[in-house]
Amino acid sequence: MALAAPLAISLGDPAGIGPELIAEAWIKRETAGLAPFFVVGGADVLAAAARTRGIDLPVSRIAEPSQADAAFAIGLPVLGDEDSKPTFGSPDMAGARLALHSLGAATALARSGKAGGVVTGPIAKSKLAEVGFTQPGQTEFLADACSLPHEDAVMMLAGPSLRTVPLTVHTALSQVPALLTQELIVHRARIVARSLARDFGLARPRLAITGLNPHAGEDGRMGDEEQRIIRPAIETLKAEGLAVTGPHPADALFAAHERGGYDVALCMYHDQALIPIKTLDFDQGVNVTLGLPIIRTSPDHGTAFAIAGNNTASAGAMIAAIRMAGECAARRAA
Amino acid sequence: MALAAPLAISLGDPAGIGPELIAEAWIKRETAGLAPFFVVGGADVLAAAARTRGIDLPVSRIAEPSQADAAFAIGLPVLGDEDSKPTFGSPDMAGARLALHSLGAATALARSGKAGGVVTGPIAKSKLAEVGFTQPGQTEFLADACSLPHEDAVMMLAGPSLRTVPLTVHTALSQVPALLTQELIVHRARIVARSLARDFGLARPRLAITGLNPHAGEDGRMGDEEQRIIRPAIETLKAEGLAVTGPHPADALFAAHERGGYDVALCMYHDQALIPIKTLDFDQGVNVTLGLPIIRTSPDHGTAFAIAGNNTASAGAMIAAIRMAGECAARRAA
Repeated sequence: MALAAPLAISLGDPAGIGPELIAEAWIKRETAGLAPFFVVGGADVLAAAARTRGIDLPVSRIAEPSQADAAFAIGLPVLGDEDSKPTFGSPDMAGARLALHSLGAATALARSGKAGGVVTGPIAKSKLAEVGFTQPGQTEFLADACSLPHEDAVMMLAGPSLRTVPLTVHTALSQVPALLTQELIVHRARIVARSLARDFGLARPRLAITGLNPHAGEDGRMGDEEQRIIRPAIETLKAEGLAVTGPHPADALFAAHERGGYDVALCMYHDQALIPIKTLDFDQGVNVTLGLPIIRTSPDHGTAFAIAGNNTASAGAMIAAIRMAGECAARRAA
Repeated sequence: MALAAPLAISLGDPAGIGPELIAEAWIKRETAGLAPFFVVGGADVLAAAARTRGIDLPVSRIAEPSQADAAFAIGLPVLGDEDSKPTFGSPDMAGARLALHSLGAATALARSGKAGGVVTGPIAKSKLAEVGFTQPGQTEFLADACSLPHEDAVMMLAGPSLRTVPLTVHTALSQVPALLTQELIVHRARIVARSLARDFGLARPRLAITGLNPHAGEDGRMGDEEQRIIRPAIETLKAEGLAVTGPHPADALFAAHERGGYDVALCMYHDQALIPIKTLDFDQGVNVTLGLPIIRTSPDHGTAFAIAGNNTASAGAMIAAIRMAGECAARRAA
C-alpha cells in the first residue's frame, strides 16, 4: 500500500480558534492516530496560539511538503514564511490576507498531489471578502480552485453518529421549495454515492432521502414536493442501481434505532441536516466536501472569535477533521 | 395537599398499539410511579391487547371515576361498557367509533373535574374522520371541547432531554413563512410561559426562540423574517417581563451544552421542533397540549398499525405521558 502524501492544513483566521486547535491536534497526534500534516504559513501565530493553551509548541519549518513526514515527529511542520501578529479575538486585514494565502496555497498543493488532501481552518467570510475572497464560503472557493461548477461541490457533515448532506445550504427558508428540483437531488445524490464509495470505503452506500414537509407530506396532504420532485428523483436513482430509500419523514429519521439503516441522510435544507448532527455530535462534526478531485475536510465550527485565546474551545472537531482526511487520503493512495 | 382526581385515558384506535401500551403501563404502575388512572371503554380490547404482550390483565370495571383510586390497585380500571373486537393492525369502523367515544368521554370527565386530566391514546385521523371527527388532530378536538379557538391550544413535545414547541405545525413547509407573524409568536409564547409556570412548576420559565433561516438569517443575509417578525416579537415578550432569548440559530440550539440554558425551545415549524426531540428522546417523547383549562398529554407516536399485536412497541412514551399528566394534575391540586 502506497503512503499518502502529508495533509496540508490551512491556518484559518489567525485571530480565531483555528491556530490553537491545530496546535493541540499536533500535540495529540499519537493518541488521536493522526497521519502526518503540515500547516501553510503562520509559524508565529501557531506558537502564540499554542501558548494560550499552555502548550510550548515546537515548530518545524519545512521548505517542501515532502519534508513533512520526517519533521512531523519532532514539531508541527510549517511551510513558508508568511505570518502575522494577531490579537486573538480581534480579526484584522493582515490576518485575513494570511488566511487567504494559506487556503489558496494548501489547496494548490493538494491539486498538484504534493499534499494528500486539505483540512481548512475556520475563516471569517466577511473579513476575507475585504481582501479578495469572492465566494460565499470555502466550499465554493475549493470548487473554483478545482475548475468545477459550484453544484459539483457537495457539503457533507459527518460525526460519530451520523452523516448528513443538506441539498440546499445557505439560502433563506422561503427560497428552499423553489430551489428543489429532481435534477438537483439526482445530481448531488450521484456525487454522494460515488464519493462515499471512493473515499469512505462504502462500496454501495445506503442513501436515505428526507421529505421536505412534515411527515414527508402525508401523501400530499401537507405539500406536494414529495410527489412532484423527491419521489421521482428517488426512482431515477434506484433505476441507476443506487441504494436509495425515501422520502422519509425527517423528524423520525435520526432516532438511534433508525440510524443503522443508512450510511448518509440527504436532507432538503440546512437545518434539517444540521440540527441532527449538531444535536448528537456537536464537538466532533466534520464538514467534508464531496465531488472534488481533492480531499477536503474542515471542523464544523467557525472562528469563534469570542473565545479565541481563552483555552476553552474543543479541539475535537479539528482532530476529527484531520483524522478523516487522513483516512480518505490513505484509501485513495491504496 | 389535596389529591388529584384520577386520570382519564382514552383508548386510541383499538387496532393500533394504544391498548397494549396502556395495559403495560398499568402493569408497570408501581415501578414507573404512576398516579391512578382509568380507561374509558374497551375492557375486552385491553385484555386482548395485553395478551399479545404475554400479559394476563385484570380489568376492574368501574361505574364512576371516583371508584378508580381503589380499583387501580387490583386491576386496570375501565369505565363504561363500550367495546369492540379489533383485529390488531386492521382498523375498522367499529373501532373508530369506540376511539371517538373514548376520547370525547375522557375529555368531558376532565372538563367536569371528575378526571384530573386526560391522556389520549393514538388515533388514525383518516379513520376517525369517517365517523364524524372533523378536526385536523386531537389537539384541535380538545380545543373545541373546551370551547377555545384552535390557536389557544399549543402543542409542546417534552422528553427527558428537551422541551420544544412548533409554532406552526401541520402545514406544508412552503406555507410556513407566510404563517409566521409577531402576533402568533407572542400569543403562543405567552401561553407556553403561563402553562409551564402553572403545570410544570417553573415560576419563570426560560424560553429560547429559534430563527427561521440558516444561522438565524445572519443579519438578513439569508432571509429577513428574524428582523421583521421574530426579533420584534421577542422584544414585546421581554417588555412583558418574560425570560426570552433569541432568535437562535436552530442547528446549534439543541447541543448538549446549550440545553441547560432554557426550559423550552419555541421553533418556527414542525421539523425544527420535532427533529431534535425525536433524535434525542424517541421512545420517551410526550405531546402536551398547553393553554387548555384541562391537562392533556399523549405519547408522541401514532397507532403504528404495522406492529400492533407484535409485542414490539415500546411503552416508554405512554408511561411518560401518564406520569407527566399525573405530575401536572398534582401541581394543580396542590
